[in-house]
Amino acid sequence: MKNVFLYDTTLRDGTQGEGVSFSVADKVRIAERLDDLGIHYIEGGWPGSNPKDIEFFDRIGAVKLKHAKIAAFGSTRRAHVAVEKEDNIQKLIAANTPVVTIFGKSWLLHVADVLKVSGDENLKMIRESVGYLVSKGREVIYDAEHFFDAYKDDPAYAVETLKAAAASGASTLVLCDTNGGTMPNEVIEIVNAVKVKIGTPLGIHVHNDSGMAAANSVLAVVAGALQVQGTVNGYGERSGNADLCVIIPNLKIKLGYNCITDKKLRELVEVSRFVDELANLRPNDKQPYVGNSAFAHKGGMHVNAVEKNPKTFEHINPELVGNHRRILISELAGKSNVMLKTSELGLSFAKDMHVTKEIIESLKKLEHEGYEFEAAGGSFELLVKKAMKRHKTFFKLEGFRVIVEKREDNRLISEATIKVKVGDETVHTAAEGDGPINALDSALRKALCQFYPEIKDVRLADFKVRVLDAKTGTAAKVRVLIESSDDREIWGTVGVSENIIEACWQALVDSVEYKLLKGAK
Amino acid sequence: MKNVFLYDTTLRDGTQGEGVSFSVADKVRIAERLDDLGIHYIEGGWPGSNPKDIEFFDRIGAVKLKHAKIAAFGSTRRAHVAVEKEDNIQKLIAANTPVVTIFGKSWLLHVADVLKVSGDENLKMIRESVGYLVSKGREVIYDAEHFFDAYKDDPAYAVETLKAAAASGASTLVLCDTNGGTMPNEVIEIVNAVKVKIGTPLGIHVHNDSGMAAANSVLAVVAGALQVQGTVNGYGERSGNADLCVIIPNLKIKLGYNCITDKKLRELVEVSRFVDELANLRPNDKQPYVGNSAFAHKGGMHVNAVEKNPKTFEHINPELVGNHRRILISELAGKSNVMLKTSELGLSFAKDMHVTKEIIESLKKLEHEGYEFEAAGGSFELLVKKAMKRHKTFFKLEGFRVIVEKREDNRLISEATIKVKVGDETVHTAAEGDGPINALDSALRKALCQFYPEIKDVRLADFKVRVLDAKTGTAAKVRVLIESSDDREIWGTVGVSENIIEACWQALVDSVEYKLLKGAK
Repeated sequence: MKNVFLYDTTLRDGTQGEGVSFSVADKVRIAERLDDLGIHYIEGGWPGSNPKDIEFFDRIGAVKLKHAKIAAFGSTRRAHVAVEKEDNIQKLIAANTPVVTIFGKSWLLHVADVLKVSGDENLKMIRESVGYLVSKGREVIYDAEHFFDAYKDDPAYAVETLKAAAASGASTLVLCDTNGGTMPNEVIEIVNAVKVKIGTPLGIHVHNDSGMAAANSVLAVVAGALQVQGTVNGYGERSGNADLCVIIPNLKIKLGYNCITDKKLRELVEVSRFVDELANLRPNDKQPYVGNSAFAHKGGMHVNAVEKNPKTFEHINPELVGNHRRILISELAGKSNVMLKTSELGLSFAKDMHVTKEIIESLKKLEHEGYEFEAAGGSFELLVKKAMKRHKTFFKLEGFRVIVEKREDNRLISEATIKVKVGDETVHTAAEGDGPINALDSALRKALCQFYPEIKDVRLADFKVRVLDAKTGTAAKVRVLIESSDDREIWGTVGVSENIIEACWQALVDSVEYKLLKGAK
Repeated sequence: MKNVFLYDTTLRDGTQGEGVSFSVADKVRIAERLDDLGIHYIEGGWPGSNPKDIEFFDRIGAVKLKHAKIAAFGSTRRAHVAVEKEDNIQKLIAANTPVVTIFGKSWLLHVADVLKVSGDENLKMIRESVGYLVSKGREVIYDAEHFFDAYKDDPAYAVETLKAAAASGASTLVLCDTNGGTMPNEVIEIVNAVKVKIGTPLGIHVHNDSGMAAANSVLAVVAGALQVQGTVNGYGERSGNADLCVIIPNLKIKLGYNCITDKKLRELVEVSRFVDELANLRPNDKQPYVGNSAFAHKGGMHVNAVEKNPKTFEHINPELVGNHRRILISELAGKSNVMLKTSELGLSFAKDMHVTKEIIESLKKLEHEGYEFEAAGGSFELLVKKAMKRHKTFFKLEGFRVIVEKREDNRLISEATIKVKVGDETVHTAAEGDGPINALDSALRKALCQFYPEIKDVRLADFKVRVLDAKTGTAAKVRVLIESSDDREIWGTVGVSENIIEACWQALVDSVEYKLLKGAK
């Protein structure tokens, strides 16, 4: 089987996409998930560009990854500056990663108009920067920015830049279609031409401005590139980067390349949704392979044929990538996901078909209402435990009221009152907060902690709100995801309602119940 | 210049996409718009499949088109039925179109499992159906369904089916990748192989299940196909059909094919949005060429380079397809972003360094507090106008109160009271809502619309909430982004606070002020 190495840049190039922004904690979670998926290289950020990325490298250094190498990204040194004195290069070293990826200019248009230096100085910048980083013990990947445009403009100079990087010890030379304007027939031709002249392994990094990113990536691999760069869900500047969720199954299933395992390939839909959730972006239903509609059959004739033989209208078995066929509302999909997840949770009831059925039915009903469990493992576990009759009720809500008041002097007051019953005791209390959700959260904890002191350890780490039916404006149904943590674990919970306070309430209650059930194990 | 013919199937194959549905009146409007754009063939529907399509052909027959030929779509006759007696074929005749497109089976898997006939009977079905329609004076286009899968399975039989259609008088033989699973290298190989054996002009019709639809279409044309089929915005079953909004500019700008005029190409963005509007679908911002983000620059370094020379990070001049450059304001932005963005707004103060300085300082301060303006162009414009002293106050808040109550019976009540002063008049009013934000939104509109009736046109289309400092849990600062629209425009506004209601309030106020300032221009 032929090998190809996967290089993910969701955390760096992906964040240049419109609307994409991750907290440092999000970035760490994504890196861990990608490592688990089997990605070979994870580009974590550009330490020379912003302090958030420096913090990421600090944090990820303490995480033990199973598989992936973390790369820090930056550029060749500035013109006429000694590489030892160059702040950006020093920040790359300080990031303390096994891999450093630096980009340099291949295109004389950029050398003249942007860098405003000579072609020779540019070559020197490439040589010295790569060489210096190699001398510091790093694996250096060289991104040849605008390589295809450069090659069409001046093939000899473009190849010279690659040779400069190769001679200085770069491990891989990545041909970049930075502007995304290259046609697939040109990619085939240029990769073939370069391959003859360069012995160092090649990589491919393309953007989707012409709608060709997946094709150009795959064709470059077929032509001999050994590394393919992209982002989860194709995040990236303008029309995005090449989408690894599309490229991976094409390489593995269609073209027989060895990249991630069959088992991990079946988690691709889950990874795609997980990253969309953290980015707070609406998933693209039409996304090939992993989209919600990717195996949705509408035409009556198609449905009929698929029933006779799925191969008639399905290019692959959707389960290979963790997706499922959707035909009618009565689909049985998700069963294997449910089984897989529950066994992951250590909740074994494989033989109890009644429980399985009940879980699948609850899931279907809740997903139809807008709940989703990809990033809400805590709520999912509660749902499973309910079906297994291993759930218990810790308190009963008798009512709450949340008030937010703003006065002429701009002073804001948020207050929540709450009445809950624990066993035979009723507690009626109130709390203020920085906002209505904080007030409600505080009031709930205040009411409960005399009975369950362990909830003092729970911190609410993040929450996200997603509008489910944008057309109805502020009256739309919203989904709230809350992430909680204690000293040992992070868990996500979910709530859905037209009322954001109610949606938060559901997620808060799940968060507390999850914690209390853990203690009750 | 090489020619290529465009064949649109938005009105037939496009409507098989999840969530796509057009009224007959919509279909007529779209056909007229596509005719005006310069599309050569417009497939209007499948008269054998539903009465709506029969009505479309009735209506479109009365419309004088400038350029396009209308095609009715159907299949070859059923097995063992005389073509004169076949209802579907008779409906194709009755549609009274200059062109009829029929599909037939190329793949023995389908012939055996779906049609359940012999390979010979299938060839006979193709010959007789094409021949009969030609004898009725129609131009017959033959869609070879699943051609690429068929060719990989049994090349000789697949070519036989094409020869059967050609011998019976089909004008074009369209090679279909119905399941969308074919890789681009296979498309090149197979089109080249078929071209040698078949003299009749070839067409290409592909689906996007592998993310290859645009590439496969373009590569087939480069290999010699004379007709390319697709849909506006890539509507279609599963992951969609090939997107003509992507294919047309690639063929025309990148590959030099003659298809639509330069002038009409500049209407492509407009056509794309028009069809989304009628389909009531949210435009895909990342769509190559025509998407809202297709020429949006976020990274400060990119913006800086684009300023020096647009070719550095733009594969084409966006105006060629009727799009425009957008500069995003984000944490990755530099001074260049701000200057370009303000000149984009038509707010020229380049020489007034005091105003520039004030804007950059406000931006820095606000971004430090957690505001972000990338998706909040409305708020950014207000900020600029404030610095330019071109802002005015339309109302003054004296106070609001928002209450959410949940009772034991699970009933939820959300109510907002508000007191605002407009000129010398004070309004004190209240409204209920589906949640606290909806209630506050309704109360604000209720208070203002007697003074400013134009705010009735404003719809709140989307909102997003993001936690800025995850560590403080539900007491964290949140950023709310609201997207509003009226009949002519969409604008985003932003608010930041530890209190989600206050953050929404700020974004709501900006939304209203933006609208009122527009009217005051």
